[in-house]
Amino acid sequence: MARARKAKKPDPLKLTLAALESNDLARVRAVLAELHPADIAALLEGLPPESRVAVWRQVDTEKMGEVLLELPETVRTDLLAQLDDQTVIAAVRSLDTDDIADLIPDLSDDLISEILFALDKQDRQRLDTALSFAEDTAGGLMNLDAVTVRENITIEVVLRYLRRRGELPEHTNSLFVVDRTDRLLGVLSLSKVLTTDPGQRVSQIMYRDIIKFVATTPDKEVAAAFERYNLLSAPVVDENNRLLGRITVDDVVDVIREEADREILSLAGLRAEEDLFATVRQTVRNRWTWIAINLVTAFIASRVIGLFEGTIERLVALASLMPIVAGVGGNTGNQTITMIVRALALGRISETNARALFAKEIGVSLMNGVVWGGLLGVIAYLLYRSVPLALVMTAAMILNLMLAAVAGVAIPLVRHRLGRDPAQGSSVMITAITDSGGFFIFLGLATLVLM
Amino acid sequence: MARARKAKKPDPLKLTLAALESNDLARVRAVLAELHPADIAALLEGLPPESRVAVWRQVDTEKMGEVLLELPETVRTDLLAQLDDQTVIAAVRSLDTDDIADLIPDLSDDLISEILFALDKQDRQRLDTALSFAEDTAGGLMNLDAVTVRENITIEVVLRYLRRRGELPEHTNSLFVVDRTDRLLGVLSLSKVLTTDPGQRVSQIMYRDIIKFVATTPDKEVAAAFERYNLLSAPVVDENNRLLGRITVDDVVDVIREEADREILSLAGLRAEEDLFATVRQTVRNRWTWIAINLVTAFIASRVIGLFEGTIERLVALASLMPIVAGVGGNTGNQTITMIVRALALGRISETNARALFAKEIGVSLMNGVVWGGLLGVIAYLLYRSVPLALVMTAAMILNLMLAAVAGVAIPLVRHRLGRDPAQGSSVMITAITDSGGFFIFLGLATLVLM
Repeated sequence: MARARKAKKPDPLKLTLAALESNDLARVRAVLAELHPADIAALLEGLPPESRVAVWRQVDTEKMGEVLLELPETVRTDLLAQLDDQTVIAAVRSLDTDDIADLIPDLSDDLISEILFALDKQDRQRLDTALSFAEDTAGGLMNLDAVTVRENITIEVVLRYLRRRGELPEHTNSLFVVDRTDRLLGVLSLSKVLTTDPGQRVSQIMYRDIIKFVATTPDKEVAAAFERYNLLSAPVVDENNRLLGRITVDDVVDVIREEADREILSLAGLRAEEDLFATVRQTVRNRWTWIAINLVTAFIASRVIGLFEGTIERLVALASLMPIVAGVGGNTGNQTITMIVRALALGRISETNARALFAKEIGVSLMNGVVWGGLLGVIAYLLYRSVPLALVMTAAMILNLMLAAVAGVAIPLVRHRLGRDPAQGSSVMITAITDSGGFFIFLGLATLVLM
Repeated sequence: MARARKAKKPDPLKLTLAALESNDLARVRAVLAELHPADIAALLEGLPPESRVAVWRQVDTEKMGEVLLELPETVRTDLLAQLDDQTVIAAVRSLDTDDIADLIPDLSDDLISEILFALDKQDRQRLDTALSFAEDTAGGLMNLDAVTVRENITIEVVLRYLRRRGELPEHTNSLFVVDRTDRLLGVLSLSKVLTTDPGQRVSQIMYRDIIKFVATTPDKEVAAAFERYNLLSAPVVDENNRLLGRITVDDVVDVIREEADREILSLAGLRAEEDLFATVRQTVRNRWTWIAINLVTAFIASRVIGLFEGTIERLVALASLMPIVAGVGGNTGNQTITMIVRALALGRISETNARALFAKEIGVSLMNGVVWGGLLGVIAYLLYRSVPLALVMTAAMILNLMLAAVAGVAIPLVRHRLGRDPAQGSSVMITAITDSGGFFIFLGLATLVLM
């Protein structure tokens, strides 16, 4: 791993833009040469599209592969399109096979076969293995460079073997103990190798009770296990317990980050990580689904009000007060739904405790309804000097907050049980319910009581 | 580290609840004995408060310390209150000093002095060091058990030293090279120790160009660097480059998770991670601030409508249509603000590209406004057969979506520049602006054009 200095100031983004403006490409190259590939990726992401391509052209071919790996997919595809085939092949060849596998989906078929042709047999086999697992599984996440030893040799022999072997793969903190047919028997940490008597046998000191993942395990589960058990690395096996590779925590960190990002974005009804400088057209495409759904729900809310136009015509104060009922309901509903989505993501909700959750949220909404609904009733009275109107206001607030609580718990739970993403657009849905519901409750009560 | 088996099925939560119901505490203990402390913590979190205390009483004292570390603060405080002083001291003593430091804020002064008294001198000094840094800094995050070597010795000597020393601290993948006065000179990975010629000197093979953190560095920055540079561990130094400790990636994973959680929660206007089974009173306290703010903003929106009651009285259709303008504006504004908050959190926005962002978001909103506003204009016409009303609808949609875009970019950027959390309650704020703004634009245009 290139050990980068933290290039903090002067800001490379500013330096690069200044160099670009004076058309000094040599200076751009000089700035880039000082940066870690991950920093170059961040720099490229922060640039508007025109400058981005100009800077990308100045990146060293050797670093290009690493930079591409660090970029979000949208940006990566754009920048790959800027390269001729020979440059892509040169850039990709400098990478580990499992990293090449991550880039493959973005490449054309012609390019893929050229790359396969350029690899030696072992690497080609490894690439085949890496490509045979879905990206979002343990198999897709693993590195193929696990170092293995046999259980019946002594630590002395392990030490000699490692010294003869030379440099270990990046982030190696353990050796994997396998039998003749590659079945995983245990794990031997490097620190154990260094601190035990060289006369001991591997079988005497290896961990047997290890956390391992079958290659088809979803990456979310892998990430949860790494987080919960504080793992640095873990072996990946096939269904016959044969060692396939190892997962290291740095890749898991990316999964955790992506999961959290996805949750935040989908709560707001965004489809995917968006390139900050995506074109207007791309952005509209990313966001349109939930806006369209929102339009339908808003239309329904509007029709609910339409039902009561006669009532509003006779007491126009209702038109002013109704958005308060709907708005506060939407806000508290969003709080509830966020809590539940989080708890589901962290695996904290099961059938056994769902009922207790409903009870709690309804309790909270009752308390909020009485306090805030009461306050709003007083305000409504002060504005319009009508006790019945004030009472309608308070009652509608209590009922709508309870509706928000029930829907806020139920929507994500039901989606979860149906195997859907509980976060996806839940904000739009809860708002739809508290809007239409709020208008209906408030105007309905007003029609009953005041007309 | 205890290497836990993934206890997947049968579900320990169900087993425990069943055992509790039949009052079979021995079986509860048997279930707990099989579990990793992190799994016990997850189990406790998933239990309603009464059962939680009953199960907590059955946890082995030796595991209690580890379990407490894994619990969110709200639950931890409750469970600590269940223990008598002697049990707390016993539970805490089994932990590393830096872990004890994490628990200290939750303990009474009496207990803290008893614990200090129970520690030996070296551990007491370490605890002092650990406590002297804020929790959310590199110093608060570090372990104090870095293994150090001198630069002028040979690998042969390092090997002998390590073997004599015996077991290395958990998650040790590197040794730190320091001079006589503990100044950090470089890092020597265990894999390097194992694979180079024992005759070489440490100074010849150590990494000098290392990423290190001054103890006062905010934990967010540490996490970002770990993520960006794929680190497994990194040294922490004081302002004179003297080695204080090391940060390992497993603790950084927790920071990344907490940051992401905080962002999700604060977007919804929630103060902190909430115990799923917090009492109604605790929950109301966690959520009330933003509800109160929302009440004020909803009241303002209501008063904006109040200004136009005369207009609504003459054309009650406006009351039905106005929530569409406000609602769709709120939804798109929320999408924009989520994007910007994310980009700020990932450090992708700077002064140099803020202007381009505004331009893009306004472009998107214009396009959405024309498309969806046009569609809504048609629908309004079909419902109410009035061309002027349809035009007002379309124009109001376009203007409110542009307002949503500008506010969606500006609110988080301004909060960021003021050094505030850009996520905090931004959903409530953007909705406030698109509601009041939407009502004002729509009803104002209607008054001008239709009256």
